[in-house]
Amino acid sequence: MIMKTYINPPKESWNELLSRPAISSKELVPAVTEIMETVKSQGDKALRAYAQKFDGFSSEKLEVTDLEFNQAFESIDGDLKLALQQAAANIERFHMDQLPKVVRTETMPGVNCWQKGVPINKIGLYIPGGTAPLFSTVLMLAIPAQIAQCPDILICTPANNEGKINPAILYAAKLCGVSQVYKIGGAQAIATMAYGTESIPRVDKIFGPGNQYVTTAKQLAASIGIAIDLPAGPSEVMVIADDETPAAFAAADLLSQAEHGTDSQVILLTQNEDKLREIESETLKQLNSLPRKDIAAKALENSRFICLSNYEQCIGFMNTYAPEHLILSVKNPTDWANRVTQAGSVFLGNYTPESAGDYASGTNHTLPTNGYAKAYSGVNLDSYLKKITFQQISPDGLKAIGKSIEIMAAAEKLEGHKNDVSIRLTAINKKS
Amino acid sequence: MIMKTYINPPKESWNELLSRPAISSKELVPAVTEIMETVKSQGDKALRAYAQKFDGFSSEKLEVTDLEFNQAFESIDGDLKLALQQAAANIERFHMDQLPKVVRTETMPGVNCWQKGVPINKIGLYIPGGTAPLFSTVLMLAIPAQIAQCPDILICTPANNEGKINPAILYAAKLCGVSQVYKIGGAQAIATMAYGTESIPRVDKIFGPGNQYVTTAKQLAASIGIAIDLPAGPSEVMVIADDETPAAFAAADLLSQAEHGTDSQVILLTQNEDKLREIESETLKQLNSLPRKDIAAKALENSRFICLSNYEQCIGFMNTYAPEHLILSVKNPTDWANRVTQAGSVFLGNYTPESAGDYASGTNHTLPTNGYAKAYSGVNLDSYLKKITFQQISPDGLKAIGKSIEIMAAAEKLEGHKNDVSIRLTAINKKS
Repeated sequence: MIMKTYINPPKESWNELLSRPAISSKELVPAVTEIMETVKSQGDKALRAYAQKFDGFSSEKLEVTDLEFNQAFESIDGDLKLALQQAAANIERFHMDQLPKVVRTETMPGVNCWQKGVPINKIGLYIPGGTAPLFSTVLMLAIPAQIAQCPDILICTPANNEGKINPAILYAAKLCGVSQVYKIGGAQAIATMAYGTESIPRVDKIFGPGNQYVTTAKQLAASIGIAIDLPAGPSEVMVIADDETPAAFAAADLLSQAEHGTDSQVILLTQNEDKLREIESETLKQLNSLPRKDIAAKALENSRFICLSNYEQCIGFMNTYAPEHLILSVKNPTDWANRVTQAGSVFLGNYTPESAGDYASGTNHTLPTNGYAKAYSGVNLDSYLKKITFQQISPDGLKAIGKSIEIMAAAEKLEGHKNDVSIRLTAINKKS
Repeated sequence: MIMKTYINPPKESWNELLSRPAISSKELVPAVTEIMETVKSQGDKALRAYAQKFDGFSSEKLEVTDLEFNQAFESIDGDLKLALQQAAANIERFHMDQLPKVVRTETMPGVNCWQKGVPINKIGLYIPGGTAPLFSTVLMLAIPAQIAQCPDILICTPANNEGKINPAILYAAKLCGVSQVYKIGGAQAIATMAYGTESIPRVDKIFGPGNQYVTTAKQLAASIGIAIDLPAGPSEVMVIADDETPAAFAAADLLSQAEHGTDSQVILLTQNEDKLREIESETLKQLNSLPRKDIAAKALENSRFICLSNYEQCIGFMNTYAPEHLILSVKNPTDWANRVTQAGSVFLGNYTPESAGDYASGTNHTLPTNGYAKAYSGVNLDSYLKKITFQQISPDGLKAIGKSIEIMAAAEKLEGHKNDVSIRLTAINKKS
């Protein structure tokens, strides 16, 4: 029995059950700071040295060439291409519908205010490489950047020891219209995007997942004023099951999260103890057939299978935990969904597996972990825009609103602010 | 001559002209960390000790009482009440129009995705006190929180040595429907909102301006996962003038920013050297009549009055600087506004003073400084919402999309993700 089960745990124990494992990367800060500073001061030279040291290849040119793109295209399986195209089309549709309209309000006669979404100029995406190349993340991060019409989008991703990048990553990049791809991995990639080098421009906002070095580098980049997509934490899922939930489906949902990493978090929540036991045994059964079963088993050791005594308790527990992924594998998923106040992405019903959202349904898979769903949204079209406000006031509008401004400015003891209006009102009154 | 002027500066000098003064609060981190840790471990007791030490009053009860609210109401001038009401109504109108609709997309038949804005539960506002009480900031931060329907909104603001809070702040709070107001200032207020104490709940997101201690505490809060509104920096304005700009108006705009603080940044940009000189002398003239002229004069020492030789150069300079406030005091402000890609808030024409946006036109005055406008929006309705995604897939929808998910998951070597779909497709095929 590797999972921990809790049947009607007393309220006093909830804090413990709702907690996440403490994550701290403080010990990495000195090493990552050194990498950041080296890239800042030595630029391309440092990048080549790190490529040699960490990735094991040497190359004068870090940017992927047209030839390499073409070779990648030829080496990819046709079915995978079609799958990526279908996923890309769905992601595009959903994010296109998120494009904000200009908000225009005449707050008083002659006082016109509006708010416009304007693309962030320079976007940098970090895509992890290694044994499991996350080409799906290319789609998730580059497609909304294109829809937002961000003018400059670049990707940094590590190459293997032959200096090659996984072809699916390059195919996905081209599919999204991104042609600036650099063979840079780890903290040095984040440093490149934060500071720029002779051949690679710095960016305004950095997106993308990564290991502890990458996330530490992103934190350091954020502290010097580069925007980042989201604070990082291990991936997690909460599955809510009732008496009719197919146990095999719930088990597959839990395991698909558990296989992400040994620090993944997996929670089952139900009001039915028999169902809990059924899902527990089904999870153990499916676990054995997974190639990544060692990772998943380790993650399951931190998992929690919880039975609570009523619906309101479940709703409270679910919202307080604020899961990254929330699977509502229940008879009346819409009723539950209407009660969700804190979660990253919500999956309704028995035929909506988490992996649909991870790859192809259209929603974004870059989501708030670690309880950040309490205050953060997952990546969405807004992540690529600034909302700039504008206002234009007519002389009559200023006459209508001016006195209030003068009174408030004077009460805040800012006479210069008051004069900014008074000088105009005097001019208006002189003319009329 | 206290201002620095630059007539057709060579391109090589632009980086210097576009730079901000380096701000670093690293030396405050140990002191602020100690305050944060003390509040975390000692709670209310620590707050009372800090109130005694920093604000000079002692009180068992830190929460403002109904009696205190009532006294504040009675002591406020009727004109100020009306001014606040007019400002509040305009702010409410503009932010109400920003309420997002639910975005619903059927990305493929049977694959339904939607995105919903959901209020952040617990909002904490910090309002500086002292000699210039920023009651306008109460309106700017609390009104959108109410529109977003955030369930819990609290305010921390320092009291004076009699334990009293400025009545205009209390009036503004009640006007916005906020009744939880605590007499806590400085870094200890941020610590309270980040950790909570016995009598004051922790919050999910902290908003509001403050001195270096407050902004350092907000950074520390952000590093432990509490969301904050914006990274902080000194306030700034860029005024763009042409040959018809009334010099007195431009000077008043520049001075209304300069009076904020000695570190405020003030930039005039024009293609007309004569106009530059005219605004320069008008600025010096108006300066002398300001109560805060010492502060403004100090800020003007860091100011830049710049003449560039053509329109495109001005557009490039303006967007690269990414000013917090941008005043387009020109003949054709709409043409200029359409070219703005990086700014916090934009003011069009000669009768749209910056102080209108600071107080009463309806736009928010909490804006990105220090070049953050490249990637950050000012406070707006989105700042109080999480955008949660939802999806529901029918069995037919999963049949249509399932193969793509299986192929992509397998190519990313995540067999658990693949199985999450396969197990459902098998069940669907068995039924049919």
